[in-house]
Parts: sequence; structure tokens; C-alpha cells
Amino acid sequence: MTTSIAVVGVSGFSGIELVRLAAQRADLAVVSVLSDRWKDAGLGRWIPGLPAALASLVVRPQADALAAARDADVVVLATPAEASADLAPKILGLGRRVLDLSGAFRLTSPDVFREYYRFEHPEPALLAEAHYGLPQLPAAAGDAPRLRDARLVANPGCYATAAILPLAPLVAEGLAEPDALFVDGKSGVTGAGRKVAENLLFTEVSENLSPYRVANHQHTPEIELALSRVAQTDVSVTFAPHLAPLRRGLIATTFGRLTERGRSADLDGALRRAYAQASSPFPDPVVEVVAPEEVTVKDVWGRPTARVGARGDTRRGSFVAIGSLDNLLKGAASQAMENLLGMVER
Amino acid sequence: MTTSIAVVGVSGFSGIELVRLAAQRADLAVVSVLSDRWKDAGLGRWIPGLPAALASLVVRPQADALAAARDADVVVLATPAEASADLAPKILGLGRRVLDLSGAFRLTSPDVFREYYRFEHPEPALLAEAHYGLPQLPAAAGDAPRLRDARLVANPGCYATAAILPLAPLVAEGLAEPDALFVDGKSGVTGAGRKVAENLLFTEVSENLSPYRVANHQHTPEIELALSRVAQTDVSVTFAPHLAPLRRGLIATTFGRLTERGRSADLDGALRRAYAQASSPFPDPVVEVVAPEEVTVKDVWGRPTARVGARGDTRRGSFVAIGSLDNLLKGAASQAMENLLGMVER
Amino acid sequence: MTTSIAVVGVSGFSGIELVRLAAQRADLAVVSVLSDRWKDAGLGRWIPGLPAALASLVVRPQADALAAARDADVVVLATPAEASADLAPKILGLGRRVLDLSGAFRLTSPDVFREYYRFEHPEPALLAEAHYGLPQLPAAAGDAPRLRDARLVANPGCYATAAILPLAPLVAEGLAEPDALFVDGKSGVTGAGRKVAENLLFTEVSENLSPYRVANHQHTPEIELALSRVAQTDVSVTFAPHLAPLRRGLIATTFGRLTERGRSADLDGALRRAYAQASSPFPDPVVEVVAPEEVTVKDVWGRPTARVGARGDTRRGSFVAIGSLDNLLKGAASQAMENLLGMVER
Amino acid sequence: MTTSIAVVGVSGFSGIELVRLAAQRADLAVVSVLSDRWKDAGLGRWIPGLPAALASLVVRPQADALAAARDADVVVLATPAEASADLAPKILGLGRRVLDLSGAFRLTSPDVFREYYRFEHPEPALLAEAHYGLPQLPAAAGDAPRLRDARLVANPGCYATAAILPLAPLVAEGLAEPDALFVDGKSGVTGAGRKVAENLLFTEVSENLSPYRVANHQHTPEIELALSRVAQTDVSVTFAPHLAPLRRGLIATTFGRLTERGRSADLDGALRRAYAQASSPFPDPVVEVVAPEEVTVKDVWGRPTARVGARGDTRRGSFVAIGSLDNLLKGAASQAMENLLGMVER
Repeated sequence: MTTSIAVVGVSGFSGIELVRLAAQRADLAVVSVLSDRWKDAGLGRWIPGLPAALASLVVRPQADALAAARDADVVVLATPAEASADLAPKILGLGRRVLDLSGAFRLTSPDVFREYYRFEHPEPALLAEAHYGLPQLPAAAGDAPRLRDARLVANPGCYATAAILPLAPLVAEGLAEPDALFVDGKSGVTGAGRKVAENLLFTEVSENLSPYRVANHQHTPEIELALSRVAQTDVSVTFAPHLAPLRRGLIATTFGRLTERGRSADLDGALRRAYAQASSPFPDPVVEVVAPEEVTVKDVWGRPTARVGARGDTRRGSFVAIGSLDNLLKGAASQAMENLLGMVER
Repeated sequence: MTTSIAVVGVSGFSGIELVRLAAQRADLAVVSVLSDRWKDAGLGRWIPGLPAALASLVVRPQADALAAARDADVVVLATPAEASADLAPKILGLGRRVLDLSGAFRLTSPDVFREYYRFEHPEPALLAEAHYGLPQLPAAAGDAPRLRDARLVANPGCYATAAILPLAPLVAEGLAEPDALFVDGKSGVTGAGRKVAENLLFTEVSENLSPYRVANHQHTPEIELALSRVAQTDVSVTFAPHLAPLRRGLIATTFGRLTERGRSADLDGALRRAYAQASSPFPDPVVEVVAPEEVTVKDVWGRPTARVGARGDTRRGSFVAIGSLDNLLKGAASQAMENLLGMVER
Repeated sequence: MTTSIAVVGVSGFSGIELVRLAAQRADLAVVSVLSDRWKDAGLGRWIPGLPAALASLVVRPQADALAAARDADVVVLATPAEASADLAPKILGLGRRVLDLSGAFRLTSPDVFREYYRFEHPEPALLAEAHYGLPQLPAAAGDAPRLRDARLVANPGCYATAAILPLAPLVAEGLAEPDALFVDGKSGVTGAGRKVAENLLFTEVSENLSPYRVANHQHTPEIELALSRVAQTDVSVTFAPHLAPLRRGLIATTFGRLTERGRSADLDGALRRAYAQASSPFPDPVVEVVAPEEVTVKDVWGRPTARVGARGDTRRGSFVAIGSLDNLLKGAASQAMENLLGMVER
Repeated sequence: MTTSIAVVGVSGFSGIELVRLAAQRADLAVVSVLSDRWKDAGLGRWIPGLPAALASLVVRPQADALAAARDADVVVLATPAEASADLAPKILGLGRRVLDLSGAFRLTSPDVFREYYRFEHPEPALLAEAHYGLPQLPAAAGDAPRLRDARLVANPGCYATAAILPLAPLVAEGLAEPDALFVDGKSGVTGAGRKVAENLLFTEVSENLSPYRVANHQHTPEIELALSRVAQTDVSVTFAPHLAPLRRGLIATTFGRLTERGRSADLDGALRRAYAQASSPFPDPVVEVVAPEEVTVKDVWGRPTARVGARGDTRRGSFVAIGSLDNLLKGAASQAMENLLGMVER
């Protein structure tokens, strides 16, 4: 049985990677691709290396999204949050399922949403319904069983995935104090999407490192929400992201205080237990647990894999836990592929 | 009155920058330069743009260090820690003063030194005597008055300077909880010195970010010691450094919990008060207090200036404080110049 | 029918890419992989993303090359020229076929070989026998029919491929004066292989461009030989390669004088005619003819495709013809795959 | 005696470097700086490291150019060609001298100007009058004596300077065939000025090399004109520039056929003779003659120096001659400084 998908916003970095991944699977058929940037030419003009059928698929304008949705089992939205928030309810209204790569459905509170995304959510009821699709979250999250049945799946953010994966096992096992966790993010420029903006010029990015949205980035409440579910208690996260001079790849370095129990625990063991059973639809694993010094960008670049590692400092009662991933793959398209396959699993 | 200086280890990145800075001052005369890498040629062969007198100064082998010391008022050691630990006592024994750019004299405890530097300090008594030369440390540190009289000055580490400058005012004013501070460091490759090592190849560094010495880097106790003096209480720091794909420049992003008093305080104001009076021997200031998003590498690259910025999150009771600098200037050579001028001030 | 191959020198950049390409084909079975750098661990430890069978294939020491050859239909040598020159005759002696990625068998004259490779060829008779495997060379080269029958195939150099492809149609049709062609090469650092050398450090390569082996690079006679066969007259080439600050990718910009006939000819048309029929074993074409300004690295990065483009300046009687490719793919591994498939075609 | 200068277009990369250089000289006073990008703030807000007087100089809108000209001895135009072509005649009309960094006055023929600059020159008479300010051009150019008296000086282009310097001695001595010279240029992105354009984004430039304006770049006739004057015969040049992933720095690699006399000549000696007497107003020389492999960007980065080197291939009757420079210094601002000092020399 083949699942047919439509991809809205195919010309973005994540949309392109998603099409590349889908092209490798016989059980998925990309039947429509939409973009206002590329419209009216075959996909092969823009994305090299595709099989002939996909290469000749003509890109449609985004205004065709609802028409395209009718012919698809699942619609993948690789659009900005505001566009996704507008489109998703309409597509659900047609009886189609939605996998959204933006942040439009990752939070549950309309108030928090407004504060961080800076617009009013048009369909707050869907915030409660949407499934947060990070398949490796410990069972305590209670979400995994619902993926198969979800109408609307929110694909996690790139920073959020890289921060949640190393931290979740520590808070789940009560090893890290939940009241004050800290996340330092460093991302390559494709994390910002394909924009022509002065701060993304080569002369601005190369030989530079720059913090942005310090202590007010929109992935902050997303990390808190996911970790609070896992910990079954409120978790507080302070987050500072930085732009680094590379194309793709991201590291989230997290810090916190160990609980009494955490001081005598084996943090590496906790991570290994958490991800030992994680299944992968790719030749590569979806999570690799390694020493913190091996949680590099180089080792996950171009791969659907997150690396995680942790080290406790028992004298100081603290820990460092690190996650790295390719922001376009495990931080976007390959995680979307995990979710897509989970949605249609039989 | 001219002060004569000898520079041992002139071929390192810091040594080169120091000579460049000294060349611009009429009150300093570089009388000897030593290096085993460059010996027996005029300095101009290796460092372009020098005035004729310096360009023709012949580089001597490092074995001549004691002979060279005899002709100098101050000997600057731009050598690895083990070499500095060996040379400094001998030079002091000749009645000459020493400014050391390595970590050999930045700590006070021989035990902590051994743990982090991985060799036995040959002259532990000097650890207590050495002046830690970060001239902008708040007066509470009690060190500033001693610079003029110090026989032996330890120039701070690059990460340490970038972390101490934004944190010192916060702990000095009792705004940050001292029991658990966290530092995330990101540095360009010149921070590792001029080594031919696989991990410094272009193919390893470009498109990569990689953590190293996580929670056990030797600048950790250096930061703790400086902040503890300022706070007049024990300060605990957990530090994770990362190598980033740029030549020079460094950011230290620090995190912690606010004290009760800190929650209602103006963190930016605290930084501004701390550095308002900092004097600079350069056209540029030595510290600039800006918004956290402006604490970039680009804005300090090639300058003798550290930038610092802080933001509190009162709801979460936490803060982020960031420092950036050029690792070869405020993280090494220009700070050495500040110290050198302070040592010989009349 | 499956062809079994052994790869000697699998840990080099080209060896890795070759294994990745072979993993995607059902008609090829990699049965042995050899490397002194990686020996005694499964290939999956070093190359992520491989199917299970390949990932578990244990890397053998290079000393096992002859034993491994006995079990393979074709032995791929991804070794330095001196090692290839030594191994190839021995493998042929066992009745096995060889595809060599080094320069050991790309020239025909032992004298020219000695001058450019700086060692004495141990088996000069094989220089005459080896098939130069650039499958898109115009039929005039007379080589294409022999690939299927060749015992020994020399895979072309990366610069040579990028220079020959845009120039061959021009000299074949008598549009370019053959007495003085000029090639300017610019390559990313992986072109130099995986060496720990000072000139390949990040601090040396970034923010730098540097010429090397100016007018005496070993690909010079290789280009001349291939073009002379195509032109059926002696062709003279002057070549200057440069190292550029990128990981992979290469551009050869070629210049020359137009013949009388060339001044009224359509150079773009000549290129299109030459490559219109080129067949490709990949989803992507092996050659794309585009405007000169579109012969970029970006458009061939990660692809098995060379781009070529040409423009004449009739007033000046001159032309510029440019070729770009990914030095690890069309400049090495994907071209090797083309040759491998051509060798075993039935 | 102090010369007062006004700088129009100070916010461009070249304008900034020019102010930095002027700040170091006691005989030059920058009295006005103009820019529509920066207007109404002190220069120190944008350019760090300036002495107090310059840092506090308020940037004026470009509409004030004529008023500012009245107070200056020389007006430096760091404006686009179209703006320079408009402003220069008006400033000359006020009796002030002009040093123009654009291409507006580098050619002599209005027809060639229109073809390459794509607009009609508003003041063609000035094309004949303008002095082409490349001070190291061999005396045969007949221009050097006029610099002191010139009302209008055209500062050469960056590619043009890098190509002319290695070629001029070869054509002046009759060593290179003038009918067909070839120039391959490779430049960092600051060569394109400070524009927000898609092709200058980090994601487009890094890991890329791309040719542009192949065989029709506007520096082509500029190189031909300068070399024709030197050779005292028509020189034909074919030029292909490329964008490379670095911030600053440029290499021009030139190729051609040797004349009969050139085949037995010492090309390196010809370059050395040509530049042995070149005087420099900087601690560094303005030209360094080295082996071709040492004509790198690294060795001229941040310096007012061009490097040149040449090698003949007598067997092939050809040569390669290479020039490298920092496009913002010897390719723009430091050469402007040479010209400025020459204009006011007494």
C-alpha cells in the first residue's frame, strides 16, 4: 500500500530534503508539490538527482493547496508558522491529515503561543489536539501511542529536538533538578530558512558567532512542555541560541544541577537505556549515545541521526548534556519522515 | 622613559599580536624576540608591516631566554604552560619581572593545578605570589593596586576573560546564585595555538562544531577563583568549551539562577556601573556593555575590546550573561599589553 | 549477475564515496575493503548510512590485497600512485581486472611519467595497455569500445576531467588553436586527500587562495594526451592549479585562441552536440551544458555530474570554456562507477 | 602642511579602509565624511579604533557633497561609477581635486565605456583628462609624472591592479605575445561591495566557486588600456572572474605565449627589475616579487602589498604570471592612499 503525500512549501530547505527522503521509499508517493517561489516548472529543475517521475512533477502555486490536499492521504506543511496555522484547519476540514513542520501546533497554550510567536493563533482548539511528534520521547510522555491516529502532527523544532533528547532521560529518571535547566544552542545558517537578509550575508556570518533572541526564543516553551510531560512536573528552561558560520548542523549544550539521586547516577547509562530500543526507518540509527566530546556536527551532518552525550560533575553537583543533529534532517525532514511513517503504519 | 621587553615564544599567534601592539608604542622597546620555530632570521620575514627596527631584529633560539632576560625590564613569556613554569622562576632569579601568557601561574592551589594541567608545578610558592592580571576586575578583588609592584603577572585565559567579565558584576552585587554557574564557550581555531593536528585540518573544522574537555577544561578553576574573590564566597562553575569554524574570536555564554535580589535588579545597569570607569590604553575601550544580541564576534574581531551583555528572566528566576572577545587580543595580547603598561606605570 | 569488487584504500575520501555509490546498486557486491588506517573494524564504524551487510564488512590490512583480489571480479585501487603502480601488475598477474583511481596508469610515456610523478614506473609496458576511462570522450579518441575488454582502467584525474570535458569538443571540431591552451584550476581541500599537513590546516586554508605546482602539475600531460587523441594533433596545455577554501568541488577555467573556423562557430552548440548522447547510470546526467556563469561548484556539489560551458569573444579571437565537478564524484568515485559498470557491461 | 580630504561614500568597504589608513597619518586630515547609509551619527559608531577626533566626526548625507568639497583640498569618491561620473565634474567645477575609486574615469573611449559600464558617460571629455593612478606602472606608461598635477585621478580596479602588475613588465620588455593574454580572477566577496543580494548569502557563497561576467567584465578594457600603454602596442586580454568563499583577497592568474625573446628570458628577473625601485608610503612594500607558489592571499591579507610571480615553460613557449592583493587595500584603499600622497607631494 502506497501513501500519497502533498508537500506545501517544497522550495524551502526542509521541503527539499523531505522530497529527497521520500524519493527513496517505495511506500510513499509524492503526488503534489507546491511553492510560490518555484511554480510552473518540473521539480527536477530545482532538485537534482530525483527519479524521473518526481523530477517531472510540476510545481504548483501555493494557492492550490486545498485542491492538492484532496488528492493526498497526508499533507506536509513546510510553510512558515502563520501560513501553517491558516492552512491546517482547512485541510483537516477536508478530511485529510496534516504533518506540520512549523511551530504553529507545537505549544498547547494560546497565551504562550502569542507571547513567543507574536501573532494570535487562529484555531486554538487544535493546539490541544495536535500530536507532538518526537518519536523517541520516553513512554512517560504518553504521546507515542497516538501518532498512528493523529489527524494533526506537529514536527518538533530543530533546537528543541537537540535539547530534549539529551535532557529527557535525565528529568524522567529524576537525575536533574527541573527548576533551572539551561540550553545553549548553536546553529548553521540554514536553520534560518532561505531568506535574503543582511544578517545572513557571507560577510556577516563568516568569522562571526552571534547570539539572538536571548532568553526569549520560541523553542523555549516547546522544550519546557516536552520535558514537563516527561518529568511529570514543571520544568523551567532558559535558552540562548547562536548563529554559527556553517551551512547545516546544530548543537544544543545543556546544563543543570544534579538531584541527590543524580549525583550517584550513571548519566551515560540513563541515556543508553532511554534510546536502546529506538527503532529507525533509516540504515542509520535515529539516536546515538556517545561521549560528550563526540557529540559533534561532523558526525551527524547529512544523517538522520541525533547524537547525545552527558557527563556529571559530582563535586560540583552539576552536569552537561549535549545533543547534535543536522537541522535539515533530524531537526526537520528526517524526523518528519519518521512521523509520516508512524502516522500511516498498519 | 622606555621599558625594554623580551618576548619568548614570539612565533605563536599571541606572540605575533603582542609584537604588533608593542610596535605602535613609543614607550615600549622590544629588545629581544625568541623562538625555536623561526630562529636566525629578522622578524620582518615572518611578521609583515613592522617598522624597520623591529623588522630587522633577529629571532634568537629559545635557549637564549636567560641571556635575553638580562637585557630586558620585563620578559613576556608566550610559551606553553610547562615551559613558562620552568622559565619564570629562573628569570625572576635574575631580578627581572615576568608577564606570563600561559596558564602556569593563574591558579593558587598546586593540587588543582596538577588536576587540570596534568603536570606537577615546579615552583608552587610562586602560585601564591603571582598577580592575576585582569585589570577590570571589581576592586573587591583586591588585586588591582598590586599590578604596579608585581614581580610575576599571570595573563588570564581567553575563555576565562570572556566568562569573568559578564559574571563578575553579577556575583559582586549578589545578583547571581554563586553555587551553580554555567559557562558555554565557543572559540575559533587560533585559540588552540599553531599546531599541526588532525582535528585542526580544514576538512575537520569547517562545517563542524565540536565540544571538547567537557566539564574538565583548565579554565574552569581559573574562572571559579576569580569570581570567588570578587564574590567573597565560593563560586562553582561548570564549563563546556566548543571549537567553531572561524579563525579568531570567542564567545562565552553564561547562565545561572538569580538571587532574590537579582530578580528585581537591573542586570544591564550592574554591568554598566562595573565598567564605566575602566580606562583603556587603546583608542577603543577595553569593555563595551551592550544588549546580549550585540555581544558578537564580528564586533570585537581585531579589537582590544571585550563586549558584555546580560538579560534576566524574572519569571524563571534565571539569567544569561554573555562575553565576546578576540581570543588573540583581549583574550591574550592586548590584555598582556594592558598588564605590561600597568606593571611599569609611574 | 552480480559483479564482486574489492576496494583497496577504502579510507581515503574517494574510497568512501565509491563504497557509498556501490551500496546503492544491486548488481555490484563489495566483497572486500582494505585500509591500513582503519583495519580490523566493521566498515559501519567509519562510514555511516550503509546497509547492514556492508556496515559489518571487516576492514582488512592492505597487505591482504592479493588475497582479496582472488575473490573479486574487479579490484578498485584507491591508493597513491606509487602503491597502485606496484599492486596493479600483481593483481593482473592473478587474472583479475583493475580499476585504478591514482595517476599511475594515465600517461603513456615512461619519461613523461618520471618527470611529473617523480618516480620510475615499475611496469612501463602497462602504460601502453591501460585504458583511460573518461567515457564521454568523443569517439575520435577511439577508446570507448575498449572499456568492456580492458584489463586495466585508469580513472582520470579530477582537474583533468574538468578541463578535458569543456575543451575536447572545441579541439575535436577544430575550433580552438591546439598550440596554446591554458587551464586555471581551483579545487577544494579534499582534492589533496586526507593528509595531516600544515598547508591543510583551517588557519592556512580559510581566507586564503594559493597556487601550487604552477606550470608543472602532473595532470598537465594527462590533459594534453587526452586532447591530442581527440584533436588528432599535438595539443599543448599550460596549467596552474589553486587551493580554495572549500571542502569539495573544483572548477577548471580554460582559455585559448579560436581558429578561423572557431570565430564563426557556435561554441555552446559544439558542447551540446558532443554530450547530447552521453548516457548516465545515475538519475543525474554525467554532463550538463550550461552558460559559463552557471558552471559553478554549488550546482555539482554531491552530484555525479560535470557542468561545462563556453563563450567565444570573436573580436579578440579567443574563448573561455569552463568545467566544474565534485572532485570526489565525477572527479573520482562516480566516474570510477561509470568505468566499473562499463567494464562489466554485457 | 596638512592636506584636508572629504570622503564621499564612507560606509562602503573601501571608504572604511581609507579612513583607517588616513587616521594613521599626521599629514592628512579627514574633514568631512558622507554616506546616506550612516548619516547623522559620529563615525566612531560605525568604525571602531579611530582616534577621538575622527570618531566624533558626524557623517553627513551625500547630498552635502558639494558643500563638503568646498572645505577640502581633495575629495575622495568611494561611490558607484554612476554617482562618481555625476559628482566629479561638479567638484572639479568648484576648483577642487578628485580621487575616484570607481570605474567612472578609468577608460578613455566613451564607446568602450558604454559597452562595459552600461550607461552613457555624462562627461566624456574628462575620460581623456583623468590620470590612471597605478603608481608602479613602468615609466613607459608616461603617466607617473602627471600624478602631482592631476585634477582627477582614477584609482584602478582590484582585478585590474592584480593582473597588470605581473603582466606589465613582461609586455614592456617584449617577452609576452600581446595578441592573446588571458586572466583568471578569483575574488573574495567584499569585492562586490556591501549589497544585500541572494548571490552573496552565506548559503550561496560557502562551499561554492562561481564564474561571473565571463569574457565581458568591465575590468577587461581597463587592463588592455594599461598594458597597451606599457607595451606601446595593442594588447588583447580575455578575462574570466570568479567569486570565491572568502571575505577579502584576490588572485589574478594570467597566461600567455612567450615571444622568441621571452623564451630565453628570466621572467622573475624582469619582475624584480620592474619593481626594485617602487617606493612605499607604508612600512610594507607596495609590491613583492616572489615564486608563483607564494603569490597567495594569506600573504597579502590586511596588507597594502601586491605579490607577483611568474614562471615560463620554455618547452611549451608559454608562461604563467600571478598577482595577489587584498582587494580592499592595494585593490582599493591603500592604492588610493598612494595616489592621494602622490597628488599632494611637494
